[in-house]
Amino acid sequence: MAPSHPALDATHDPALRSWARGADGHADFPIQNLPFGIFTPTGRAAPRGGVAIGDSILDLAAALDAGLFSGAAAEAARAASGESLNGFLALGAGPRRALRARLSEILAAGSPDQRKAEACLHPAADCTLHLPARIGDYTDFYVGIHHATNVGKVFRPDNPLLPNYKYVPIGYHGRASSIRVSGTDLRRPRGQLKAPDAETPRFAPCERLDYELELGIWIGPGNALGEPVPVAKAEDHIAGYCLLNDWSARDIQAWEYQPLGPFLAKNFGSTISAWVVTPEALAPFRIAQPARPQGDPAPLPYLLDEADQRRGAFDLVLEVLISTSAMREKGLAPHRVALSNTRHMYWTVAQMVAHHTSGGCDLNSGDLLGSGTVSAPDASGFGSLLETTRAGKEPVQLPSGETRRFLEDGDEVILRARAARPGAASIGFGECRARILPAA
Amino acid sequence: MAPSHPALDATHDPALRSWARGADGHADFPIQNLPFGIFTPTGRAAPRGGVAIGDSILDLAAALDAGLFSGAAAEAARAASGESLNGFLALGAGPRRALRARLSEILAAGSPDQRKAEACLHPAADCTLHLPARIGDYTDFYVGIHHATNVGKVFRPDNPLLPNYKYVPIGYHGRASSIRVSGTDLRRPRGQLKAPDAETPRFAPCERLDYELELGIWIGPGNALGEPVPVAKAEDHIAGYCLLNDWSARDIQAWEYQPLGPFLAKNFGSTISAWVVTPEALAPFRIAQPARPQGDPAPLPYLLDEADQRRGAFDLVLEVLISTSAMREKGLAPHRVALSNTRHMYWTVAQMVAHHTSGGCDLNSGDLLGSGTVSAPDASGFGSLLETTRAGKEPVQLPSGETRRFLEDGDEVILRARAARPGAASIGFGECRARILPAA
Repeated sequence: MAPSHPALDATHDPALRSWARGADGHADFPIQNLPFGIFTPTGRAAPRGGVAIGDSILDLAAALDAGLFSGAAAEAARAASGESLNGFLALGAGPRRALRARLSEILAAGSPDQRKAEACLHPAADCTLHLPARIGDYTDFYVGIHHATNVGKVFRPDNPLLPNYKYVPIGYHGRASSIRVSGTDLRRPRGQLKAPDAETPRFAPCERLDYELELGIWIGPGNALGEPVPVAKAEDHIAGYCLLNDWSARDIQAWEYQPLGPFLAKNFGSTISAWVVTPEALAPFRIAQPARPQGDPAPLPYLLDEADQRRGAFDLVLEVLISTSAMREKGLAPHRVALSNTRHMYWTVAQMVAHHTSGGCDLNSGDLLGSGTVSAPDASGFGSLLETTRAGKEPVQLPSGETRRFLEDGDEVILRARAARPGAASIGFGECRARILPAA
Repeated sequence: MAPSHPALDATHDPALRSWARGADGHADFPIQNLPFGIFTPTGRAAPRGGVAIGDSILDLAAALDAGLFSGAAAEAARAASGESLNGFLALGAGPRRALRARLSEILAAGSPDQRKAEACLHPAADCTLHLPARIGDYTDFYVGIHHATNVGKVFRPDNPLLPNYKYVPIGYHGRASSIRVSGTDLRRPRGQLKAPDAETPRFAPCERLDYELELGIWIGPGNALGEPVPVAKAEDHIAGYCLLNDWSARDIQAWEYQPLGPFLAKNFGSTISAWVVTPEALAPFRIAQPARPQGDPAPLPYLLDEADQRRGAFDLVLEVLISTSAMREKGLAPHRVALSNTRHMYWTVAQMVAHHTSGGCDLNSGDLLGSGTVSAPDASGFGSLLETTRAGKEPVQLPSGETRRFLEDGDEVILRARAARPGAASIGFGECRARILPAA
């Protein structure tokens, strides 16, 4: 059985170069990344599986036809070559690692397979990206402790961080059907809004539309109903990572959320980045779970594993940028409004999986987990406008001279993730981007 | 376009008789019902679609092969003959009604097709029932106002019914993956439990395991993301009904539910009855939405439709029975612990659909909605033990001499629904039944 935490190997070598155009030094997709996704080349009808490399996408079905794979790598490539990655996610670490190793060989500078593989590349600019998998269930956690504290202050000034927070990896079930891939526009929702001083609610377009900066987690092999996954085995059930913007209607949320949690405030749409970045690609960026502040309780035993504490967290820089219609007209670049890091997650991904299944709940391949908003401790790294503008009280200044309390129609929100550590090649996730359309 | 509310026709005639054994006077499945489901006959490998009639199940694939259907009825029968009903649910009212009309002819006493159809029947006792559809998303509402008030008293004595309740059809996203068909055992979950006077939580088997008596709603044709379904059109998106037991771990729930709602307290399993009872079969049991108590606000315009107010509610008797291991050993019949009625729903199913989609959320064929626990105003009709035993303070007496504050291992919970109105043939839903296994 493959170890839970992938080891560093030749595929991670920062000196490794690729013959593929734009790969070396690519901000997201150098040869050390090799993420999986579903794409349609221009003019072709059927979505198919591919691997991002530099400015191109390698068509896995074509590469199979060209005889580039054998053994476990071929098994994984076949599972990843269809119109969704569910079967590939289900395979688990063994075949996935075999495929990664072989892809690294094929795409490396000097590979004898270069000519065959070149014929399987499509320029990424000519391709349409799709959701990488059929998402069964979507669960959103709340492990960004600075976010939980900041939001708690808005909704419950007296009681921002509830007593369960440091014991329970808090989460709730989200809506899977309305998750869309990066680049899909998002329509502003209508809903019941009730001002604190209003007698009754009214039904109107959301006036406090917000983003949430999250890490998304793709479930690989599932577990049977009634059979919890121990925290020490949780990594075996994770197939990859993405960026997730869990759009939120703060005014709808404030009125509806008690007693059963967010519902319409979140289910009008969520946006994810298109590429499944594998646990292997992220191996160089694992770090120890940051020590809990003095006085915080230790995790209960079912959430505690020594290896997870030592390597279960991530050092990934997360970024939010906004581009307004006026900014685009003036030719201004998207403006960064937050810079955060996954190290601000209070629970590891393995703890999230262990907790989710601890009562017996079954996870299935293609399920998606969200981390919850990952905010840094200070305002320069808050992962939502609710936090950054202190619930609209301190608007954000944009280079166009505009300000934003919350999102306006035409605004585009872009999330990015960058992994960079000394001695490792820097990789990224690709963008998670969407633009706001006016309410219908 | 078919009208939203099906009209009464020849298929509802209470005088109609069937040649199928046990159909006339059957508690659940006389010829006026004709619900759809997925079953496997003993010794056959592949699940397939069928129709319950008396003590038998009509195999739709076999009936198609026998040439019993043509036109729209054949189209619907084909969509319902495979290993899930998703395609059939997606067809909508037209083909579904055509198939019902033809099934009623075929199964009616004196039908010239009796001999052909008899060859397509399986004794229900020899069949295994399955989930009728692949469930995409599952949403649980909270429209039983007496339940909401009773539960509110337990969790928030000062503030049982929150100010939003009479404006917002409160709901939350549930876990689709862990829904199982009637007859599947349920393992008692472990989870974090924290007594009010305890310093810290502990991880242990649930000590307050409960059932919830709910109406389930199957979504038929879906809506596109960003395109709300008006309340006047909502019935067009409903393909049928079932019983739903939304098992709940009250101790896990009390500790975890703030601020994002129930999560592990509910996701270890839910049980539904196997048969999709169609809107057509329930047409005789539609009633006006009961008048709101004096002083309650009118629904906001997006939730208000004259026809829905006039015919949008249901008169269905709902029942909960418990059978313990000791009762079964003594040969005692299951004991009824609650008798309620769907007329105690504060919002109609059409209002639930209109609200769910009002912000743009997309529903898909095979999604499941739950009503939330439907409790009667008095203790004889409370739909959960939390209410019936007043949070464990007043145990239920069982005919075996045992008492129950909450469910114990070996207990079996059975939900039933019965529709009976003067001038209509009485129909039922079939059982929703499951037994509690000890924690792993």
